[in-house]
Amino acid sequence: MPGILNVIGVGPGDPELLTLKAVKIIKASPVLCVPKGREEGSSLALSIVEKAVDLKGKEIIESHFPMRKTMKKRSAVSGQRPDKDDSELDAKWDETAKAILDRLRMDIDVAFLTLGDPAIYSTFFYLYDRLLELQPDLNIRIIPGVSSVTAAAARAGISLGLGNDRIAVLPANYMDDLKPALESFDTVVLMKVSKVFNEIVDMLSGMNLIENAVCISNAGMDDEKIFRNIKEAGEEDLNYFSTVIVKK
Amino acid sequence: MPGILNVIGVGPGDPELLTLKAVKIIKASPVLCVPKGREEGSSLALSIVEKAVDLKGKEIIESHFPMRKTMKKRSAVSGQRPDKDDSELDAKWDETAKAILDRLRMDIDVAFLTLGDPAIYSTFFYLYDRLLELQPDLNIRIIPGVSSVTAAAARAGISLGLGNDRIAVLPANYMDDLKPALESFDTVVLMKVSKVFNEIVDMLSGMNLIENAVCISNAGMDDEKIFRNIKEAGEEDLNYFSTVIVKK
Repeated sequence: MPGILNVIGVGPGDPELLTLKAVKIIKASPVLCVPKGREEGSSLALSIVEKAVDLKGKEIIESHFPMRKTMKKRSAVSGQRPDKDDSELDAKWDETAKAILDRLRMDIDVAFLTLGDPAIYSTFFYLYDRLLELQPDLNIRIIPGVSSVTAAAARAGISLGLGNDRIAVLPANYMDDLKPALESFDTVVLMKVSKVFNEIVDMLSGMNLIENAVCISNAGMDDEKIFRNIKEAGEEDLNYFSTVIVKK
Repeated sequence: MPGILNVIGVGPGDPELLTLKAVKIIKASPVLCVPKGREEGSSLALSIVEKAVDLKGKEIIESHFPMRKTMKKRSAVSGQRPDKDDSELDAKWDETAKAILDRLRMDIDVAFLTLGDPAIYSTFFYLYDRLLELQPDLNIRIIPGVSSVTAAAARAGISLGLGNDRIAVLPANYMDDLKPALESFDTVVLMKVSKVFNEIVDMLSGMNLIENAVCISNAGMDDEKIFRNIKEAGEEDLNYFSTVIVKK
């Protein structure tokens, strides 16, 4: 496989949190592939990068990856057949995989941009499975970035762990796991809290941990909000990228 | 407090993984404060930065922070009086805190360099407590960096979590917590594995998870080693920064 696919974590939002390596590779890449959550929307990852790098003359492949409730991986594990939504999403991914592979086969490098760090909940890894199925000798480099998890901690001025501390990271839709995690870990980071925020506040209040929690929305962005009393955060303050950090 | 203390995550080792912000602030800083684990040794954080930024003319404050077994925070919680080692370390920290505050009071900004990301087990936060005691109106900015955790995942080509996956990060000296974490989390990241590596291998073997583990030593450095069969890793391959990632 002649071309290289570079998967680049572009950090949590502040263009200055791009790494030197990310900027160098993006500058040298003739093709950028960027995910976006909404068909009609624009890519947040692209909007970060274009503040730091001149993208003139580059081909931009925009891929619409709708969020879905049932994750492919879990369906595969349970052996369930993909439902209609899954089939639609699979078709989107096949299309993107094909577009990327077409260019790599012509020895044109492609940079796939992903928010934060690729290892932390980036949907790229769903696409990766598909790419490997189609092209097992794929030439890939993954470039780590600043994760929204540590960016949120930095903005709140706190450490996630010191010495022997144990850290748990949970997507907040896993409410059943929250109580045991709060009981046995020193720090619990809850991702994507907006949809279950009231439940989280109730549980933390019931466990006398409400004063141990801080909520950070859009860490490092112009519209950043930090709530050291998380009861003061209303639904309107929270978005998909809001994080709650609980330190015992 | 006129001067600004910038606490900067310099990433896991590859100088190209410095962020644009880290480079900008370090260039503008007349004083750098760097931790080092051994009195006679050199600072790893400084060696990363000097490959990317010309440090000529800057004042370098080297602080020797010996690793210690009993962490200050835990002694404080238990109410135990600090032992002799703690007193020695406290004196070192007081000295460093004073050196930093002297410069800040003269309106000279200081950049404190720390490996990886400041929120992930950086000893800076012990110093932070001391600084705040001495100077409650400290003017501080924490600049997140690429963590060794996600850098290791990137080099191994794996995701730490997708969709609803739960991620646990444990210092490996907490062996008692390993089994329950492996039972209830999708991904477990074990930090600083070198001293308990054989115990980890035994436990993973006993739980039929040995094939789910990968060991990464010095991710992204010239002497990087990746073991997809972790039984092949010998003691001589592992150093303080070796990480094991177990994905179920």
